Amino acid sequence: MPTMPEQALRRESAAFAADKDEIDRAIAVSCERYLPEVDGLVGDAIHYGLTGEGKRMRGILFLCAFRAAGGVGDALGLAAAIEIVHAYSLLHDDLPCMDDDDVRRGRPTVHRVFGVAAGTVAGVAMVPLAAVAAADACATLGLPGEIAGEIVAELMRASGAGGMIGGQLLDLEGEKRPLGLEDLERIHRAKTGALIAAAATLGGRAARTDGERLEALARYGADVGLAFQIADDVLDVTATTGQLGKTVGRDVALQKSTYPGLLGIEGANRRAGALIRDGCDALDSAGLLTPELARIARFAIERTS
Amino acid sequence: MPTMPEQALRRESAAFAADKDEIDRAIAVSCERYLPEVDGLVGDAIHYGLTGEGKRMRGILFLCAFRAAGGVGDALGLAAAIEIVHAYSLLHDDLPCMDDDDVRRGRPTVHRVFGVAAGTVAGVAMVPLAAVAAADACATLGLPGEIAGEIVAELMRASGAGGMIGGQLLDLEGEKRPLGLEDLERIHRAKTGALIAAAATLGGRAARTDGERLEALARYGADVGLAFQIADDVLDVTATTGQLGKTVGRDVALQKSTYPGLLGIEGANRRAGALIRDGCDALDSAGLLTPELARIARFAIERTS
Repeated sequence: MPTMPEQALRRESAAFAADKDEIDRAIAVSCERYLPEVDGLVGDAIHYGLTGEGKRMRGILFLCAFRAAGGVGDALGLAAAIEIVHAYSLLHDDLPCMDDDDVRRGRPTVHRVFGVAAGTVAGVAMVPLAAVAAADACATLGLPGEIAGEIVAELMRASGAGGMIGGQLLDLEGEKRPLGLEDLERIHRAKTGALIAAAATLGGRAARTDGERLEALARYGADVGLAFQIADDVLDVTATTGQLGKTVGRDVALQKSTYPGLLGIEGANRRAGALIRDGCDALDSAGLLTPELARIARFAIERTS
Repeated sequence: MPTMPEQALRRESAAFAADKDEIDRAIAVSCERYLPEVDGLVGDAIHYGLTGEGKRMRGILFLCAFRAAGGVGDALGLAAAIEIVHAYSLLHDDLPCMDDDDVRRGRPTVHRVFGVAAGTVAGVAMVPLAAVAAADACATLGLPGEIAGEIVAELMRASGAGGMIGGQLLDLEGEKRPLGLEDLERIHRAKTGALIAAAATLGGRAARTDGERLEALARYGADVGLAFQIADDVLDVTATTGQLGKTVGRDVALQKSTYPGLLGIEGANRRAGALIRDGCDALDSAGLLTPELARIARFAIERTS
């Protein structure tokens, strides 16, 4: 599936390794700051769910957008807040009432280790935790109250029923009946796209940009988000559980509607490629297409895990 | 258990009926504003969970604190946001992995109507919904960005793992072993107390008050919150399912540690009474003890449902 040789891909993703390490540290700092006041199992379950090995792609995308829009200062707390919301979505997706999965990020899922009650509670607790962490991170960046308010509200909107959280159930309902391309795209734009799109626009907001530049980042984020999900569908067919750190082949087993199922693997890859071209064009027109934003768009569809 | 005659009690609670009706309408307005963008079952489940018949005590307490602190303008959106967080906690408390309850607010619980997956997702979606609704309500009140940010962050902190959401699991864990009074109080202060305390302080913040007056509201709110939970424990022993609109006698069935269990019904009532006196004294010292704040404190422990 990847159009680039394996080695070139590794070089590409290594370019984001420094950001990833810093985001991992920022998440650890958030745990130290917010979890000591949390009693019992929930604190441990949140810590476990947040510190699993992840690509941190949403956080990296946010940082790249922040830099492209001319942002200065320490925005890592916001990258961590975005990753906290993402960690919530993984945790709840894996619950028995959702996908009922055993493996995530190469380890047993949170509810397998801490039980369903603690897992459910830890997951939902991550959402207000992300809001608080985002608000504190805005203060660290010295952002005015108005912008800070917009950032927290946008993160919560992207997380909410009209965005990622709503998309989780749409996705689950979609397992029960065949979907057309339009429905599938609507679900993917909510489930995966909303938070990735928010990561891009939040980078712009944190850099105090607005208007057309913010719109370009929003379009790029939405395109990359959908392309990322298409690549996910393809990887579910082509990769191994070892590569992904989660169960593969689920979509076929569940007879779930997917992009490869509807368009074939080649067609799905073409659609993903067209999306990232559209997103990069939007950035280019707004004077925001940095090499790293082009690279992360490509990475979203050419990754092997 | 009530120290007032039934009729007087009904008169007392009727005094809050106007606020309750306005909060019900504000919740309906929030549903109209935010739920149309939510697809499928989740939107319906959120609507069902938010519009069940409730006392709206947290919202009423917020409005009373707002008025006592000299607040002017339409603060109903914030009252609704607080009730949305409360509705989340009821919904998740009832899930099979938590209390596994069939009846809430006199109707089948959300997961019994919409299924566990939709119920779980609808519940967690209420938390970011409350954050967004609170941010919008602050704009309606014309609050400066700094205060709005504090309000949203405080609502999320009260909801989070260090507050209400964390308290849910502590409470569940407490079912498995006998607790002393200190542990029980810590759990109750988190599970029920955090959001009631926040309702009081948020009233002050929305009225742009701070310093000692805010501290007095916080103390009053924490006292009333704990007293409310003690009364809840007592009602679980003394009331009927018809009166409460939820299953009674659960605590005894689960051999759960409760205030009546540890202190006897009389002792528990005395402790609740002492708490509301302490809270009202704190308000009095700060010049904030209005008749309605005194009344709602009394209502918290003398209610019959």
